[in-house]
Amino acid sequence: MVWQIVALAAGFISIAVAGYLYYWVMKQQNLSTKMDEFSGEVQRGAAAYLKRLFTALGGLSLIIAIILLITLDWESSLSYLIGSFSSAVAAYAGMYIATRANARVAWAARSDLKTAFPVGFYAGGVMGFSVVGFALIGMTLLYMIFGNPEAVLGFSFGASTVALLAKAGGGIYTKTADIGADLVGKVEFGLAEDDPRNPAVVADNVGDNVGDVAGMGADILDSYVASVVAVMILGHALYSVEYVIFPLLLSAAGIIASLIGLFVVRTGESNDPGRALNTGTVITAVIFAFFALGVVFALGIDRPWGVFWPTIAGLLAGIVIGFTSDYYTDIDQRAVQDTAHSALTGPALLILNGFSYGLLSIVPSILGICAAMAASWMLAERFGVAGTYGVSVAAVGMLSITAMILSADAYGPIVDNAKGCAEYGGEDEQTIAVCDRLDAAGNTAKAITKGFAIGAAALTVLALFAAYAETVDIRILDLLQPGVVVGLFLGAMMPPLFSALMILSVGRSAFKMVEEIRRQFREIPGLIEGKVRPDSTRCVDIATQGALSELILPGALSLITPVAVGILLGRYALGGFLAGSIVTGIIFALLMANSGGLWDNAKKFIEDGAHGGKGSDAHKSAVIGDTVGDPFKDTAGPSLNTLITVMSLTAAVFGPVIADLVLFRL
Amino acid sequence: MVWQIVALAAGFISIAVAGYLYYWVMKQQNLSTKMDEFSGEVQRGAAAYLKRLFTALGGLSLIIAIILLITLDWESSLSYLIGSFSSAVAAYAGMYIATRANARVAWAARSDLKTAFPVGFYAGGVMGFSVVGFALIGMTLLYMIFGNPEAVLGFSFGASTVALLAKAGGGIYTKTADIGADLVGKVEFGLAEDDPRNPAVVADNVGDNVGDVAGMGADILDSYVASVVAVMILGHALYSVEYVIFPLLLSAAGIIASLIGLFVVRTGESNDPGRALNTGTVITAVIFAFFALGVVFALGIDRPWGVFWPTIAGLLAGIVIGFTSDYYTDIDQRAVQDTAHSALTGPALLILNGFSYGLLSIVPSILGICAAMAASWMLAERFGVAGTYGVSVAAVGMLSITAMILSADAYGPIVDNAKGCAEYGGEDEQTIAVCDRLDAAGNTAKAITKGFAIGAAALTVLALFAAYAETVDIRILDLLQPGVVVGLFLGAMMPPLFSALMILSVGRSAFKMVEEIRRQFREIPGLIEGKVRPDSTRCVDIATQGALSELILPGALSLITPVAVGILLGRYALGGFLAGSIVTGIIFALLMANSGGLWDNAKKFIEDGAHGGKGSDAHKSAVIGDTVGDPFKDTAGPSLNTLITVMSLTAAVFGPVIADLVLFRL
Repeated sequence: MVWQIVALAAGFISIAVAGYLYYWVMKQQNLSTKMDEFSGEVQRGAAAYLKRLFTALGGLSLIIAIILLITLDWESSLSYLIGSFSSAVAAYAGMYIATRANARVAWAARSDLKTAFPVGFYAGGVMGFSVVGFALIGMTLLYMIFGNPEAVLGFSFGASTVALLAKAGGGIYTKTADIGADLVGKVEFGLAEDDPRNPAVVADNVGDNVGDVAGMGADILDSYVASVVAVMILGHALYSVEYVIFPLLLSAAGIIASLIGLFVVRTGESNDPGRALNTGTVITAVIFAFFALGVVFALGIDRPWGVFWPTIAGLLAGIVIGFTSDYYTDIDQRAVQDTAHSALTGPALLILNGFSYGLLSIVPSILGICAAMAASWMLAERFGVAGTYGVSVAAVGMLSITAMILSADAYGPIVDNAKGCAEYGGEDEQTIAVCDRLDAAGNTAKAITKGFAIGAAALTVLALFAAYAETVDIRILDLLQPGVVVGLFLGAMMPPLFSALMILSVGRSAFKMVEEIRRQFREIPGLIEGKVRPDSTRCVDIATQGALSELILPGALSLITPVAVGILLGRYALGGFLAGSIVTGIIFALLMANSGGLWDNAKKFIEDGAHGGKGSDAHKSAVIGDTVGDPFKDTAGPSLNTLITVMSLTAAVFGPVIADLVLFRL
Repeated sequence: MVWQIVALAAGFISIAVAGYLYYWVMKQQNLSTKMDEFSGEVQRGAAAYLKRLFTALGGLSLIIAIILLITLDWESSLSYLIGSFSSAVAAYAGMYIATRANARVAWAARSDLKTAFPVGFYAGGVMGFSVVGFALIGMTLLYMIFGNPEAVLGFSFGASTVALLAKAGGGIYTKTADIGADLVGKVEFGLAEDDPRNPAVVADNVGDNVGDVAGMGADILDSYVASVVAVMILGHALYSVEYVIFPLLLSAAGIIASLIGLFVVRTGESNDPGRALNTGTVITAVIFAFFALGVVFALGIDRPWGVFWPTIAGLLAGIVIGFTSDYYTDIDQRAVQDTAHSALTGPALLILNGFSYGLLSIVPSILGICAAMAASWMLAERFGVAGTYGVSVAAVGMLSITAMILSADAYGPIVDNAKGCAEYGGEDEQTIAVCDRLDAAGNTAKAITKGFAIGAAALTVLALFAAYAETVDIRILDLLQPGVVVGLFLGAMMPPLFSALMILSVGRSAFKMVEEIRRQFREIPGLIEGKVRPDSTRCVDIATQGALSELILPGALSLITPVAVGILLGRYALGGFLAGSIVTGIIFALLMANSGGLWDNAKKFIEDGAHGGKGSDAHKSAVIGDTVGDPFKDTAGPSLNTLITVMSLTAAVFGPVIADLVLFRL
């Protein structure tokens, strides 16, 4: 019981830190009324969208809670509701601080980089520490009350469903606005990014906040919880209570390590904030490694090295995956420059090359994931712990320092938004240059954070896969049985199907947005000359409407298909289904994230002066490539991680119920 | 022994039919010297390329034969050489007749459709019947001599390696030329397709013959042989000799059924040749079904229905998959028209929509494959035959009527080339209109033939997967073991990796081609006015050089990785590897083939007058989409089927040798 209280305490410390950082950020000034106005519009747009989203999700959560109540028990049902609520709070908190920090960062950028950087970073910290705090408190309390990790599974399931829809909805919203703003504003009228005359510019900035910030918060909360729960379930099934509490204490250790990391970044900041963020992350990881060793021995785990080494393997793998996969989207490397070069022949070869490099970028990450999996499995087994437990612990090892990772990650869109404020507010070039450097730091930090996100997602779903096998009591999943193979194919089909629905949604909504922006430029006299303001609200409405209505089908699919496969074809086919979805889910997520990032940077490379620079034919081709990449990297790609988590959790939660209802046995 | 002789006889009949059709086609006239000249240039270009390709492949085949001699036995080594040789002959024969039929079809098109159609169709028949005849004779003879299907495995392996490189090389060649010709000729200079002033137009037509015809011939020979061999191996391992001979006799029955189908198409041709082709295929399938029943009982198989119903399930699945997957590329359906509509906002949304529909198109085919697999498995087991044998027989059932399918399939590029001849030769509008209708018929026929190709490839690799398990004596392949999961991930990575290498190759070569064409227009005075002829040879050289040099890496990867995985991680990991490669191989093949076909038709839809028609902005966007789709549908997509076949065969052939060399055991 002492250890549960330690975990709880760490959770409350995390919330306290978030509270302090919030207080500190809100104390910072912004004296530009223009920026204030813009920030206010973004705040209202984002809040209105999230309110409508969460109203809809509240209904959905109630329905699922009732289904859980009927088919399982009231504990799972209650946990589910608490999980959904936590996820919604995490998303909302992230959005709330981000939309208030943007103008403050921009105002601080008037002074210098040193003043502006902590405003952005601490705003990210509010989200990082509150997400982790809520998650840890929720999981620990539920475990203390029910004494059973299966109840915590409901919590994870709740967090996941909300995360999937927040992430997917945010992704559709942000790219509807972005593509609309770019295609008409930039391409047809030659406006700069965030030009106040562009009717979609507010919607675009709202999109950044609801997609990148709120969606990301819910998403990482989801992985974080899922990885911990998987270890708890395996620990409960295989070993003693220490093995169940262990991941909670790793999370607690991660919070304290992140707190130290937070201060390191503060003092280390002088010239290159991107490097400061990365140094902070690495230092946090090192401190965490020592804490983890302490936890292992303090808990008195009987096979200490069998849980410690997998933790470290996971931690290392995250960093290695990040740096290798970053190669393909790095503006200084061959992939981006080669792609930019092919823009000289027009958009077709640029798109083909970027897509190809995106396909190639799958290789190092998959190798990294395989290495992490093999290493954590073998290290666990070497010291007498089950390999599945080892793999799951590796995921927790990676995700333990989430507070730090998420702070650095949320920093990115916040300073990006600050730049939007500065441009909209008509700040001088120097301020915008500072914002640009802050923004570049966010991209540098991404190298590590992205690796953690990919690696952790992969290991987490593998852990959930093992947890599923545990809950439905599968001992062997034989690929030579037709049911498993059919399941494998059906599961593998889901991520492409989901991606298709997401991208088509963006296409449809963006088409409407394009028409509306064209209409405004055509029908509002004086708009293009900057004499009157555009009707931003209409654009915000189109994006909101698009995101919400387009969510229904993919959301339903992700929840219904695992249950349907389980009922129709049985638990083994469902196991194959999960395996298939994990494989293609990771592959398509990597392909889309990296090719999208690559096209984005190829465009930036040309904008920096290569192949004729801005306004050249090569640049126009690169803009087309960037637009193709937008829903790849910001809508479909990032939702896939959550999709496979939700499907695995659905299978794990409902598996025991549906395992006896099989209609056909293959 | 009697039955083997029946199979041999059918093989010789097939060759005789091919010989007669060849004689008939060559008897047709072409009196246009201009077309003759063009056809001659294409003949020389294609022959020169194939000569160089086969010289290189001859060296590779010798090396592999020596490796087989050292590691296995001389029987496998010899079979391998015979298999490679057969594949090369099939490719060469297809190219030979196609490059001679093109001008004859065009000349016949001066009369009318009725006269021209059989010239194209019978030219296709030369390839269809010779490929099948060679394959059946080769397999039967080798089995008669060695009395062991494992020796025939070497034949299949030989056919596959040559097919992979012929297909991949042809795919790179054809798209290098096509993209080059389009990007400069069409987009920059506004020339029509096949305009004689375009320096790359000969290379483009050579590409159609070496890619679509020669590559396709080798590819289908490969699937055909692999499916038969897989059944022979399983029959040998599980049952008596009747089960080994059964697939050979099914092929024999398929030849006779196809021969009847060939005459039906002849008489049925009056107005719509596309429908005639499809009717011919369906009639062939029905006749084949009766023949199959006869074979089952004549052979005296002790569980007749357990092999008959899976055969029929395979046959039906091919047709169903064809028609459903055709929906996404059909010019009269929503997917194409919706994509064309989005061209109004520029190329980005067009590409996104086409890509999304390509992703969606995976769904019906995967469902069809799963249904075929489940049905053939259950039907076999229901009547006492092993499920794996049933799935393999379903593949043979689909592929038995290959002679007919391939005739209808090869007809497509031949009449497409005839149109090239007619345009180049300056024929009148009416002749070109007839060629257009012939071409449209090829597209209609594709609906069925494509379904057979996809379904058969999927079931064939599943059969090879079972054959692999048989040869290395795996009874259970447990997805809960880390080695299998690591293998699954590594295998799943291969098709995207291979696709990336192929598309990058096309990009690099096409870039050189673009530079060369631009140079010619710039430096050759009078070229654009049509006063002097372009230097076609340079363009042919660039395409040849590009295709050959770019083949080395992907070719090596496909042969080395399965062996490496087997040696490093063992037979179970290699099993997972094959499963992973099959899943993503099929998914990426469908995605690429269908999105490419869709963009092509979206462009045609606009050219037919929608959204401003030819020359409009929407059309320009659609041309970009079509160019992106070119290497998708003609280079990477079609090579993936062969890739996964080659990897499965490599594993099956070398499996028994490497199974004892494992370095790490996961």
